[in-house]
Amino acid sequence: MEAPGMLFVPQRFLCLGIRTQLLKTVSSLRSFRFSALATMASKHKNAKRIEGLDSNVWTWLVDLVTLVSLRVEFTKVAADPSIVNLGQGLPDISPPSYVKEELAKAAAVDRLNQYTRGFGHPALVKVLSQVYEKICGRKIDPYTDILVTVGGYGSLFSAMQALIEEGDEVIIIEPFYDCYEPMVKMAGAKPVFIPLRYKKAGNSASSADWVLDPTELASKFNSKTKAIILNTPHNPIGKVYTKEELQLIADLCIKHDSLCISDEVYEWLVYTGNKHIKIATLPGMWERTVTIGSAGKTYSVTGWKLGWSIGPQHLIKHLQVVQQNTLYTCSTPLQEALAQAFLIDFKRMDDPDCYFYSLSRELEGKRNRMAQLLQEVGLKPVIPEGGYFMIVDVSALDVDLSDMVEDRPYDYKFVTWMIKSKKLSAIPLTAFCGLETKEQFEKYIRFCFIKQDSTLDAAEMILKKWSKQIA
Amino acid sequence: MEAPGMLFVPQRFLCLGIRTQLLKTVSSLRSFRFSALATMASKHKNAKRIEGLDSNVWTWLVDLVTLVSLRVEFTKVAADPSIVNLGQGLPDISPPSYVKEELAKAAAVDRLNQYTRGFGHPALVKVLSQVYEKICGRKIDPYTDILVTVGGYGSLFSAMQALIEEGDEVIIIEPFYDCYEPMVKMAGAKPVFIPLRYKKAGNSASSADWVLDPTELASKFNSKTKAIILNTPHNPIGKVYTKEELQLIADLCIKHDSLCISDEVYEWLVYTGNKHIKIATLPGMWERTVTIGSAGKTYSVTGWKLGWSIGPQHLIKHLQVVQQNTLYTCSTPLQEALAQAFLIDFKRMDDPDCYFYSLSRELEGKRNRMAQLLQEVGLKPVIPEGGYFMIVDVSALDVDLSDMVEDRPYDYKFVTWMIKSKKLSAIPLTAFCGLETKEQFEKYIRFCFIKQDSTLDAAEMILKKWSKQIA
Repeated sequence: MEAPGMLFVPQRFLCLGIRTQLLKTVSSLRSFRFSALATMASKHKNAKRIEGLDSNVWTWLVDLVTLVSLRVEFTKVAADPSIVNLGQGLPDISPPSYVKEELAKAAAVDRLNQYTRGFGHPALVKVLSQVYEKICGRKIDPYTDILVTVGGYGSLFSAMQALIEEGDEVIIIEPFYDCYEPMVKMAGAKPVFIPLRYKKAGNSASSADWVLDPTELASKFNSKTKAIILNTPHNPIGKVYTKEELQLIADLCIKHDSLCISDEVYEWLVYTGNKHIKIATLPGMWERTVTIGSAGKTYSVTGWKLGWSIGPQHLIKHLQVVQQNTLYTCSTPLQEALAQAFLIDFKRMDDPDCYFYSLSRELEGKRNRMAQLLQEVGLKPVIPEGGYFMIVDVSALDVDLSDMVEDRPYDYKFVTWMIKSKKLSAIPLTAFCGLETKEQFEKYIRFCFIKQDSTLDAAEMILKKWSKQIA
Repeated sequence: MEAPGMLFVPQRFLCLGIRTQLLKTVSSLRSFRFSALATMASKHKNAKRIEGLDSNVWTWLVDLVTLVSLRVEFTKVAADPSIVNLGQGLPDISPPSYVKEELAKAAAVDRLNQYTRGFGHPALVKVLSQVYEKICGRKIDPYTDILVTVGGYGSLFSAMQALIEEGDEVIIIEPFYDCYEPMVKMAGAKPVFIPLRYKKAGNSASSADWVLDPTELASKFNSKTKAIILNTPHNPIGKVYTKEELQLIADLCIKHDSLCISDEVYEWLVYTGNKHIKIATLPGMWERTVTIGSAGKTYSVTGWKLGWSIGPQHLIKHLQVVQQNTLYTCSTPLQEALAQAFLIDFKRMDDPDCYFYSLSRELEGKRNRMAQLLQEVGLKPVIPEGGYFMIVDVSALDVDLSDMVEDRPYDYKFVTWMIKSKKLSAIPLTAFCGLETKEQFEKYIRFCFIKQDSTLDAAEMILKKWSKQIA
């Protein structure tokens, strides 16, 4: 899963930027007029549960890119190349044509534009149960063991609100997808962090070089540990947990009677030599695991915002109650279209043409191309075993950023510099860390490679030019 | 806004019913095998915030209808007519063709299948600001004063989580849309109920006969009153609050510095002689009101699950934080299609053909037809001024339900009886009340009349047959 972007293309950042600026002026004039009233209005403040949860790397990035685009606009450098966005996890490849066609088909049917079952459209939960029964080798009840949500994001939220509360501790492995921490806090619990530690495994830099220290992990569990959040394939590192690593986590969950919230939205995106294993399939784990999947990641349609939680009825029923009291049901036409797409691929799950496998083959080529390009400019990519992100060590370049006054870690400054001077965007890795571990990751930035060839060509142009400047 | 249904048509209830039953058997066998483990798992329980929020009228109705359908199936009465569903607020009329076409168009554009801006797709918030600027006669900033949500339901949730917390009181007017109470509770606050009181206004029964008692309303406000939830046009009664009634609420909100969460999802559905007024347009109210709208109600596409909150930046910004930490963004293709549909109707807002007005004309005819049919069978309909529901006094029929053992109010029993013996479904009105006010409303049931003529014909057949039995 990946944070949604503000917009699609730099041009739109630009338009929005200016518009927002103008409207802000209007708005502040208005605020001024009403300021007496606003001061009076003591009850107009936020609930405590969202205190301090109002900014994240995405708002920072948008502010930054908007600023840059504005500057570009104002200086009227018409020939200035657009910023190439390899930051956000936003596929710009085409989704499979049948996926788009199924949505058009559903839109044309009157009843598919009306409410459907709250916990998941019948056709969708049915095919999801079939797909996951095949993968997990166990019976999955479509009506009691599955909840369809607004994206994998919505599944994470439902799981936290349903199962986590004040006094609980939740273990988060760093770096982590940035919504885990605020969601744990919004549920009133304490996040307990443990970093993946660097431990060189082979000759070339790989996501497998980042591992959990077993003793350190064991030390994080105690009687308050309600859950651990697992993410495999991992965003941002691209690590695919091995069976042994998962068994270590499972043993601790069982020992301390803790739950596992397993974010597996990149489940299909695993590259040669690696295999995605669901922790829920380990002995004793089905009963304590909520496994999360995503239509956006499965079919390259992040804008559909559909996801699902799968697990035992005694856990899923609580997530269903949360759904009933937050949004009740997800979009019918999207669920129907997704169900039809899944039916197509369910029938060819033993065929290499199944999109579940063909997409990862396509991405493996892009991963390799991206790695080579980055190496040529002196950056040190860490080859991901799965997912569609690649982290890159930028320290070898030794870019002097000491004149940047911003009080931010090195990676934030580096990305700011790279966007401004190279017109290439990425995400600083410390955006995925708790405060105390930032130093360990601030020499890395994250690129996204689920991009069409023309985007990668544009990135190549930038990197080759950059490479010449260095030489 | 209206609770989504489980399914579309009785036939499907039937299929699901049997399936569920079979799967339940499988599932309970499984549960039995794992029961030792389940007992052990003390951490597998729900968070306190959702305690007791796990059932509502919709789950009851589905259980009921499933049961009835199963019985029908098992007795193999093939000629038995299907149940005519006038219960749920589920339009079975066709949505405007351009709305469906715009969704098909959006589905075909690659980038419209990817993430968009988190707080609302730019094209959508822009046109929403234009439409509501025209209605409200004030500037509305598309980026700071609007949040697009998963239905009006999602707007209610975001507003509650953003603004309401433990120790707060929230005034709810009875009868009320059934999610208000659990949402207030989930936010940790205390719901304070006040019923609409019956006060005969004219010669014929009208939704205007239900009013707030000014002294009683004033007595509900105090220093803890964080907000009042208003719903106009009102579900289930169909009341359209007059300017004087709104002013009463506004004065109390201002006096006690309370907020108003105004659920106006039926804003366009107002019948001859009535006018919908937004409480946010009253002096001093914009600053303290979150106004909620719905695509499902505006365009008869409840399955799209898109809604919006509009209000001052200092309130909306907190709702935006909730969105950022719950689901981040809504579906892009649906938002784009909705934006295009709104653009079409925004341009013709001064034209009677604008869907905002043509739908209410169409519904007024259905309302009148429904009222007449109900009267013929001896039921006493209360003519709604707005919305697409009609409540009906069933006490004159004096149906003897004393043999029904179920411990439920009279209206629940009546609906159960009516579904079983008449194959006609409605919703019991006490489903929309707090515990203490049930007696006041248990002689009413609610019908939905946003139905195509063939559905109303089927209802007419049932009612005419019923009428003959009475005579």
